[in-house]
Amino acid sequence: MTADEANTFLSAAFVGTGRRSEVTLMEEGRAVMRLVADATHLRPGGYISGPTQMSLVDSAAYMAVMTYTGHEPMTVTSNLSINFLRPCIGDVVVADARVMKIGQALAVMDVDVRIEGADKPASHAVVTYALPRKPDGRAA
Amino acid sequence: MTADEANTFLSAAFVGTGRRSEVTLMEEGRAVMRLVADATHLRPGGYISGPTQMSLVDSAAYMAVMTYTGHEPMTVTSNLSINFLRPCIGDVVVADARVMKIGQALAVMDVDVRIEGADKPASHAVVTYALPRKPDGRAA
Amino acid sequence: MTADEANTFLSAAFVGTGRRSEVTLMEEGRAVMRLVADATHLRPGGYISGPTQMSLVDSAAYMAVMTYTGHEPMTVTSNLSINFLRPCIGDVVVADARVMKIGQALAVMDVDVRIEGADKPASHAVVTYALPRKPDGRAA
Amino acid sequence: MTADEANTFLSAAFVGTGRRSEVTLMEEGRAVMRLVADATHLRPGGYISGPTQMSLVDSAAYMAVMTYTGHEPMTVTSNLSINFLRPCIGDVVVADARVMKIGQALAVMDVDVRIEGADKPASHAVVTYALPRKPDGRAA
Repeated sequence: MTADEANTFLSAAFVGTGRRSEVTLMEEGRAVMRLVADATHLRPGGYISGPTQMSLVDSAAYMAVMTYTGHEPMTVTSNLSINFLRPCIGDVVVADARVMKIGQALAVMDVDVRIEGADKPASHAVVTYALPRKPDGRAA
Repeated sequence: MTADEANTFLSAAFVGTGRRSEVTLMEEGRAVMRLVADATHLRPGGYISGPTQMSLVDSAAYMAVMTYTGHEPMTVTSNLSINFLRPCIGDVVVADARVMKIGQALAVMDVDVRIEGADKPASHAVVTYALPRKPDGRAA
Repeated sequence: MTADEANTFLSAAFVGTGRRSEVTLMEEGRAVMRLVADATHLRPGGYISGPTQMSLVDSAAYMAVMTYTGHEPMTVTSNLSINFLRPCIGDVVVADARVMKIGQALAVMDVDVRIEGADKPASHAVVTYALPRKPDGRAA
Repeated sequence: MTADEANTFLSAAFVGTGRRSEVTLMEEGRAVMRLVADATHLRPGGYISGPTQMSLVDSAAYMAVMTYTGHEPMTVTSNLSINFLRPCIGDVVVADARVMKIGQALAVMDVDVRIEGADKPASHAVVTYALPRKPDGRAA
């Protein structure tokens, strides 16, 4: 699945919900997403809100799984743990998700979030997705 | 701070962002929030999305801290870890946050999310907030 | 499986490793373990060490799964997240594990650790175990 | 603090507890620890146990903090979250801890655990340490 295909998929899945994020890279085991923040994503002081970062993390982690599995509607988030490291102040925020493990039942991703071009991440997350079982016992 | 005062605070803080959640209970060490879901909160199949649950968890945890500290703008989420336990399908979702520890530097909350009236939680989270330091060395 | 059976199992599994913990309660969805601390479990100041608490948490969570599945050697820890809430000072430490969810692929437990008889927990953990797949597709 | 100084510190802190791990690298923001496993660290099948990995993770994360702060007895683990990714089978296990953030109140480390020489990590952890406050308000 290419980044263009991923964006087509997202536009269909989130039609009408004002999605602003887009996939900018899809390669085996890695996906990068980019969000141009608007007023709904900001907290006083111009901070990109925690929920905005968490939502982008979840989407990027899912896209990273899709680099292996393609679209699997039964793939669901099992755990998301995020550490907020420093203020996230800027107009464009990027989440870079890498697959640490993809097994039969679970995929585990490491995700960095940063303002586009920033040296240091604003937050770091580990996300676990539960994968659907194939009829023959193989994972998705 | 009462639930009414908490809602007044939230309305001011999130003016114009289409906030739909409200605080329904504030008591020492505990806060409950309630969200009437609309299309922006749903995934195909009528599931309340993970980001919607995470956002409600973060808000409820913050409100639980405020039962001790009042409004402290420098209180920031340090870690949020959520386990999605079962599908969250329904119109109204509730997050119930309880303070497990409030110390000088950190507050740690346990948060259950469930469809209003449901027996079992849809998700369970642990949230850590970093507290600002008072000039005299006491925590917020 | 009763607490006695659980202890017999543990003694066989950990023969020769100086195990000091024992199961004191097994009921559906819950297991309690108890450890009499010795010098190897302590840090300066008489604190029960973090690794000692984590080890007891992991064992108690596994025992809680066993109340549903019996002994399943292929059940493995997938994630353990622990928050240390307050100093754990005393001679006997207890971990109380409750199953929040047991599904086809995963079991998620909530575990409190406290000095025996203490009012407040010293630490709180959430533990996820991956369950082996049965040939017929059912979970363990 | 050099690796030799770190080992001298550890030997003094854990005298009589049969410590087998040693620090092999200390550089700003990073520490590596190495453990030669014995029977007490193994599970049936020759797996390095989860508690052994967690204990090594906690120590390596603490050492990484010490590359900034030196020895600070009041530095305590606040949260440890570990994902077990694949079996950890071998004689020597290594934990590589890197500081993602060191602030006034908290330090957050990313830790990989692997069998010495292995390509892929057996587990990955994120560890948060709470730092003591200096009388003048600066962090440790």
